[in-house]
Amino acid sequence: MADADRIRTVADYVARSKRRGDDVVVVVSAMGKTTDDLVRLAGDVSATIPPREMDMLLTAGERISVSLLCMALADLGVAAESFTGSQAGIITDTDHTKAKIVEIKPDRIKSCLAAGVVPVIAGFQGVSTERNVTTLGRGGSDTTAVAIAASLGATVCEIYTDVSGVFTADPRVVPSARKIPRISFDEMLELSASGGRVLALRSVEFARNYGVTLHVRSSFTWEPGTWVVEEEETMEQAVVSAISHDASEVKLTLLKVPDRPGVAAHIFRVIADAGVNIDMIVQNTSIEGHTDISFTAPKLDLELARRVTEDVARQVGASEVISDTTIGRVSLIGAGMRSHPGVTATMFETLANHNINIEMISTSAIRISCVIRVEQLETAVQALHEAFSL
Amino acid sequence: MADADRIRTVADYVARSKRRGDDVVVVVSAMGKTTDDLVRLAGDVSATIPPREMDMLLTAGERISVSLLCMALADLGVAAESFTGSQAGIITDTDHTKAKIVEIKPDRIKSCLAAGVVPVIAGFQGVSTERNVTTLGRGGSDTTAVAIAASLGATVCEIYTDVSGVFTADPRVVPSARKIPRISFDEMLELSASGGRVLALRSVEFARNYGVTLHVRSSFTWEPGTWVVEEEETMEQAVVSAISHDASEVKLTLLKVPDRPGVAAHIFRVIADAGVNIDMIVQNTSIEGHTDISFTAPKLDLELARRVTEDVARQVGASEVISDTTIGRVSLIGAGMRSHPGVTATMFETLANHNINIEMISTSAIRISCVIRVEQLETAVQALHEAFSL
Repeated sequence: MADADRIRTVADYVARSKRRGDDVVVVVSAMGKTTDDLVRLAGDVSATIPPREMDMLLTAGERISVSLLCMALADLGVAAESFTGSQAGIITDTDHTKAKIVEIKPDRIKSCLAAGVVPVIAGFQGVSTERNVTTLGRGGSDTTAVAIAASLGATVCEIYTDVSGVFTADPRVVPSARKIPRISFDEMLELSASGGRVLALRSVEFARNYGVTLHVRSSFTWEPGTWVVEEEETMEQAVVSAISHDASEVKLTLLKVPDRPGVAAHIFRVIADAGVNIDMIVQNTSIEGHTDISFTAPKLDLELARRVTEDVARQVGASEVISDTTIGRVSLIGAGMRSHPGVTATMFETLANHNINIEMISTSAIRISCVIRVEQLETAVQALHEAFSL
Repeated sequence: MADADRIRTVADYVARSKRRGDDVVVVVSAMGKTTDDLVRLAGDVSATIPPREMDMLLTAGERISVSLLCMALADLGVAAESFTGSQAGIITDTDHTKAKIVEIKPDRIKSCLAAGVVPVIAGFQGVSTERNVTTLGRGGSDTTAVAIAASLGATVCEIYTDVSGVFTADPRVVPSARKIPRISFDEMLELSASGGRVLALRSVEFARNYGVTLHVRSSFTWEPGTWVVEEEETMEQAVVSAISHDASEVKLTLLKVPDRPGVAAHIFRVIADAGVNIDMIVQNTSIEGHTDISFTAPKLDLELARRVTEDVARQVGASEVISDTTIGRVSLIGAGMRSHPGVTATMFETLANHNINIEMISTSAIRISCVIRVEQLETAVQALHEAFSL
């Protein structure tokens, strides 16, 4: 919700849903720039920001938007009550700024619904098992919505974003990309994990684990968007459903790692323990007792990743660590791949035809990802979109 | 706390108090214009503002200031933890936007202190017996501070304001006004009730009821201010301690009220039930079975007061209601008045010598108030300040 006008628009939409006879629970995030403003304020005040206090600060944002939405609903004659994450019964672990939900106790939300009142819940936040205020980190509001929907046994959890649904590719790169009417949880998971920015991975995981049907749509057009559903519900299995791309990662390579059993395990245990999110891993064929090991990680973690990797390289006797920030990843996603083994070959041929060199490959049952030069990323997405007739 | 600079200054002061070896609990209000900004935002969004939602909105203000102060303290190496009113155990009734504290459960604050951590508590707010977020209304942050001090058995509750203490008169009106080093609870109560703006009445009431010594001082100069203490502690009893004035009231008069037993009781029951805060009441001597009844009320309540008074005037058969918005009230306050019956005469003579007509009079054991023309208010304050050699 960007500003006062948007809040009134959202209130109007909620009021219409309610008048249609649906029981509605609304989860909202902070308004427009509120969160950025609060983060800047914290930086003005202090160079030392305890995560507990950052959470106390940031949760002011949703507190403002939930109360304003309830006021706008009151103006339309709709009884509504706002709830903080804590009041809504969102119990989390104690990991401030990126807490995980451990339990939902929706008693107050249920009583509110039973009284015919619309509960408006502050997303992104909860209360820890130690009774401190927590935030859920990236994608937190979507996760709150899915978790509440699961705990109430809702028919559907509608996620309103600034795009009208999930597309076969990023429409800014592929203008002919189509909106996908239905997609399975597994495909959506792979999409979110490989650079799709519409839904945060954790909210999709939560939806899949609890069987919450999602409807991803736009709060600007209100037109039907993309349904994310259990796989058996989809009518027809496309070989490839969507193409995603991601330019937010960096590649690190350890050169001349002595090829002994347990070396790779040791390396990645140390790196993971340091809190670096490793994505793809490739180990070259061993030559003369040595091998090169490459992995990708978020650019945001580059400094930390480099430091830890150089430490571990010394420990295992690798010769050098090099990093490459000009990589991009393109991924094909489709549940139909399972029964169509030719997909990989078509993908590689298409990239080869466009003189695109593949530097790393990783696959799952329903996804193939290739790391390429970042400047060839858009060409790759466009070529693959055409090759698979999306 | 106005801005980031002020927050760092306050943090610095708290850090020094802590390092001196004192256990410190800090209660803070919202920053500068935050509350005004939030009120404006509410007005932009809706013409209908449910009080419950106003409280949810406004409490975002202190949430921001407590977390920022803890961050600033962390920067100075002082361990601090922020607490909302609810987390601090401030339990209130359910009267949103002007809730009353019904209980304090300071367990978390006590544990925090025991761990050597400075608790920083959001003032002005609490949680109702129905588990909704409430605000305490005007003077709420001072009231929170006093209530917490009482519940912890604190040695002193320091109240930081933008003035350096309580003065014998408003220094803007009487430049020679002196800071009062010590004043009794009863005198402070009368001062706050008669237009003194330094401390809200309810926080003084709370302090008196629980015997919490107050120290009112400036957060700009940090110099010693005014101690508000039990009367027996004051060394010497001044006949008149201070002069206050108030131009925020309006006078309403019911003309020709039939003079029957119970009429005045009926009139003021109806007006009070409508929520109008009545202050002074004067009933003229009855002439031919009719009397005039005047009372003062806050200008803010004028519209409501007028409507209710006109209704009740019709009910009892009064001839007319007139209102007068150009009144002012000047009050003398002094515990020594009890044993100096000449004070009233001196006051009246002083006003008469300056051609100031007295329109209404009200007295308590330690206060005399006169309603006069508002344009003569400053002259009256100055003349009385001189007459009583303050």
